Amino acid sequence: MLKGIFTPIVTPFNEMEEIDYPKMAHNLNKWGQTGLDGVVVLGTNGEFPYIDPEEKAELIRFVVNNFNPDKKVIAGTGCETTRDTIALCTEAAEAGVHAVLVLPPHYYKGSMSEEVLYEHYIETADNSPVPLLIYNMPKNTGINLSVGLVARLSQHPNIVGIKDTAGNIVQLAELVRDTADGFSVFAGNAGYLLPALAVGAVGATAATANILPDMCCQVVDLFNQGKLEEAKALQQRLLEPNGLVTFKYGIPALKAAMDMLGYQGGMPRRPLKPLGTKEKEIVKAALIRCGALNEEE
Amino acid sequence: MLKGIFTPIVTPFNEMEEIDYPKMAHNLNKWGQTGLDGVVVLGTNGEFPYIDPEEKAELIRFVVNNFNPDKKVIAGTGCETTRDTIALCTEAAEAGVHAVLVLPPHYYKGSMSEEVLYEHYIETADNSPVPLLIYNMPKNTGINLSVGLVARLSQHPNIVGIKDTAGNIVQLAELVRDTADGFSVFAGNAGYLLPALAVGAVGATAATANILPDMCCQVVDLFNQGKLEEAKALQQRLLEPNGLVTFKYGIPALKAAMDMLGYQGGMPRRPLKPLGTKEKEIVKAALIRCGALNEEE
Amino acid sequence: MLKGIFTPIVTPFNEMEEIDYPKMAHNLNKWGQTGLDGVVVLGTNGEFPYIDPEEKAELIRFVVNNFNPDKKVIAGTGCETTRDTIALCTEAAEAGVHAVLVLPPHYYKGSMSEEVLYEHYIETADNSPVPLLIYNMPKNTGINLSVGLVARLSQHPNIVGIKDTAGNIVQLAELVRDTADGFSVFAGNAGYLLPALAVGAVGATAATANILPDMCCQVVDLFNQGKLEEAKALQQRLLEPNGLVTFKYGIPALKAAMDMLGYQGGMPRRPLKPLGTKEKEIVKAALIRCGALNEEE
Amino acid sequence: MLKGIFTPIVTPFNEMEEIDYPKMAHNLNKWGQTGLDGVVVLGTNGEFPYIDPEEKAELIRFVVNNFNPDKKVIAGTGCETTRDTIALCTEAAEAGVHAVLVLPPHYYKGSMSEEVLYEHYIETADNSPVPLLIYNMPKNTGINLSVGLVARLSQHPNIVGIKDTAGNIVQLAELVRDTADGFSVFAGNAGYLLPALAVGAVGATAATANILPDMCCQVVDLFNQGKLEEAKALQQRLLEPNGLVTFKYGIPALKAAMDMLGYQGGMPRRPLKPLGTKEKEIVKAALIRCGALNEEE
Repeated sequence: MLKGIFTPIVTPFNEMEEIDYPKMAHNLNKWGQTGLDGVVVLGTNGEFPYIDPEEKAELIRFVVNNFNPDKKVIAGTGCETTRDTIALCTEAAEAGVHAVLVLPPHYYKGSMSEEVLYEHYIETADNSPVPLLIYNMPKNTGINLSVGLVARLSQHPNIVGIKDTAGNIVQLAELVRDTADGFSVFAGNAGYLLPALAVGAVGATAATANILPDMCCQVVDLFNQGKLEEAKALQQRLLEPNGLVTFKYGIPALKAAMDMLGYQGGMPRRPLKPLGTKEKEIVKAALIRCGALNEEE
Repeated sequence: MLKGIFTPIVTPFNEMEEIDYPKMAHNLNKWGQTGLDGVVVLGTNGEFPYIDPEEKAELIRFVVNNFNPDKKVIAGTGCETTRDTIALCTEAAEAGVHAVLVLPPHYYKGSMSEEVLYEHYIETADNSPVPLLIYNMPKNTGINLSVGLVARLSQHPNIVGIKDTAGNIVQLAELVRDTADGFSVFAGNAGYLLPALAVGAVGATAATANILPDMCCQVVDLFNQGKLEEAKALQQRLLEPNGLVTFKYGIPALKAAMDMLGYQGGMPRRPLKPLGTKEKEIVKAALIRCGALNEEE
Repeated sequence: MLKGIFTPIVTPFNEMEEIDYPKMAHNLNKWGQTGLDGVVVLGTNGEFPYIDPEEKAELIRFVVNNFNPDKKVIAGTGCETTRDTIALCTEAAEAGVHAVLVLPPHYYKGSMSEEVLYEHYIETADNSPVPLLIYNMPKNTGINLSVGLVARLSQHPNIVGIKDTAGNIVQLAELVRDTADGFSVFAGNAGYLLPALAVGAVGATAATANILPDMCCQVVDLFNQGKLEEAKALQQRLLEPNGLVTFKYGIPALKAAMDMLGYQGGMPRRPLKPLGTKEKEIVKAALIRCGALNEEE
Repeated sequence: MLKGIFTPIVTPFNEMEEIDYPKMAHNLNKWGQTGLDGVVVLGTNGEFPYIDPEEKAELIRFVVNNFNPDKKVIAGTGCETTRDTIALCTEAAEAGVHAVLVLPPHYYKGSMSEEVLYEHYIETADNSPVPLLIYNMPKNTGINLSVGLVARLSQHPNIVGIKDTAGNIVQLAELVRDTADGFSVFAGNAGYLLPALAVGAVGATAATANILPDMCCQVVDLFNQGKLEEAKALQQRLLEPNGLVTFKYGIPALKAAMDMLGYQGGMPRRPLKPLGTKEKEIVKAALIRCGALNEEE
């Protein structure tokens, strides 16, 4: 059963907008020495919609081969069509991932009824050689997968969990209540890691774990030890940097923060642009305030 | 400092659509014997927009005079204009309430800039003889009061807390972080009472406390005793009835549930209608499942 | 049958925030000499939610008694409860209005099902001594009255039209298609007066008619004469001032523009504030560009 | 300068979910004999997000080579990255299209500021060998391109028009007013073709032109001849089938309607499913009511 803290890793690009594998290797090595339970390659923070199909397979293989083998690798494999999704799940499985994370098709929002989405997930789960996690990401997809739909899908033996980024803590509690035993409910953002644990989530798959992996892991540890006051204080410290790299500035800020903390964020692909100078100062100040960075750095 | 569980009491009406004071007295007597810290009269669940100005003053006085004097009474006094809001705060204070809960003016959403709302709250707080709580209710008002605005307002000595019904747990955590010391952040819905406590809320002002006051109070007690697993289980039990009387069916379901549990919900005012027979069965089944009602009742 | 251009008149207040009847009389006299078909008192631009019940009746009487008797007076009478709505319709009828304009109850959006709204309108129409127009205003109410609902309501002999401010021209065309013969569909904003006429609307009830009544009337005249190119050019000229006083700055800008054009806008009631100096310059420049004001004024 | 009626053609698939070129040829031949000014390949109704990069180039070439050479071909070439968008524009130009239609990148909505989008379009226009039309499609992308942004972009010599599917007729009128001379503003849906013409649009690029091309063209002709009443009547007849194939049921209904009218819609790609039997009856009845189909067919 999957649980704990996973980081949806960023994809560094070089000045030519090609995937920067040396930087990727550097980051994987560094994450491999943290308390993280694993990484997710080709998630939202990995700029998956900006990466070509052929690049995706190569990138997945690279991550599996260059990450601490004692930890887990999950690959984002959701595509707009069912057949492309199944094909990418198969490639990811062949590369050796432990599970796949499947975003729903969403361009045709008006046609993505619960029945259409149910069949898409069931067909994918039937054909995926490795377990499937559902990826609910309403802010970017415009679709919120209902608790009822996820509960039905959780009955499938190959659908083992969900990353829920909706940010609705009641929905998260209902997912814990209504899904099958052993189904893993992950918070999709570190901003509500502690309250998610309080209602029964098993951990988080969170952008902020790219930069502050051990702070995220510590929230889980403190919660498990019943040290609620300390967990709350740590969760509070996470709020500001988390808000900047997820809600406010997104990937460019996440990449800039990585550079500040010994990781190598690299360039984004256009139309995304590197973070501006003023915004970098704001991110730096937040990292100092939360204790991740020293004043003089 | 205000804290704990407050119930925003329903207003029972009789068949003539007049306020049913005998029913109100019955309910106040029953709530007075529970663990509730207090009641809120003229909140959303009290059908405040359906009650005439002259009825409001009388109703506030009735509640103050008929509720357990060891507990607190808060009155909802938000009106569309600043002068009406101040006038009602004054009347409520004269009636003896401990605090007022002020919904923002919201019909002219496009003109309710942060500056306009800031001045409205400051003028009201300057003139209210009793402390003021802010009432954030985006689903009904179409306006979400930002953390930055509430943080600024919390510096006013007469603005002492907020009921936040937005349902965004990150926002709730940020309110705890950014508001003045001693400022009380209340969850606005029992569906996220436990996670709200986990991020530092002092309690809840929740519709469900009309029908299950002691279950709500117990979540707080268990949390304070560090009994997280028991608190989580109780929070889970609250989800279903809470979802029905707040998100799904609203006031008619709340009034029907009161009738089932020994309270007297009375009629709503039109255009609201009493809950239908089929929906009543659904509410009853949920109350049985959560342990509040016996099968045979 | 109602048709043509109606202006939802602003309510001028004095420095004490009381209704400024001399200013109102001045405006009514001036509007009475334009091509307007009539006025709507207590509409959104009349700050109706800021006006007390007892003030409303007096204000309606004043408008009826002080406006050109050859033109029509409609009163906004929508309240949150059915009984208050009926009472105000009755008072308005006694004051001598030709019709009433009824906004739906909307605070409890989640409970305002089509059936609840249908019954509210039918009961009101059954009891209103004068014909009723439906007022659809989704931006402020959060509720869009569906074409299906309005079509059903249009079968009632006392429901004679709609002011639709949704801004969805397809919905407007469907209203024309599906409502009863003789039912008047009015555009609710002068920004789409011409395209509304093109799909069968009978005119508009539009804030901008407070300041540019004859330009609005001319669009209708040119359209009726088949002078499409001239109508289009005039509609284009209306866009900028209309955008400022409706979408961008609202009532404060409308009142400021009235002052610039020989009307007397007066003060708004708090929390609304008079338009700022910078914004006044923007409004003035737009009025000059559209030809309503000379440079030197 | 582009103007008139273009149809964003559907892409028929066979039972193996491969592009069905014989069906495509049949349709192109039939559309080539109508009054259409041209076709758009790889638009939203062409299931462009479901088509692989290599298929796209082939499909564009096929359409150019199999469509009436007296009419125009536009290709949808918007991709999530700037470099992929430029590459596909180049391929489309090499295939012989007259123009490209570029949807904005939209997955990272929160990062798609006006500046980011401006640079994306300018870089694309700088590098596209053929003129570029902007494609505004807020319902599917979650992004509405502002009038200000489009006005700035219209100054670029290689950006020659926009297909605006927002459905906001005021925005459409403002686009006509604020964009460069000779810039073509197209309605993006046949539901508001006539009102769009009334405010200065040059035509429409509309899904319904797949099935009722000549009815769409006739609305333009009648409008140009000043026959407003006849144009209005025809626009009214278009509303129902248009509503079904665009707002209500989408592509599956469009493909089913094509089959009913002598075109060959083919299968959609999964997760989209063929239209259900009941829904087919509804579509058929609407086609009969609008006069496109005889009862007995």
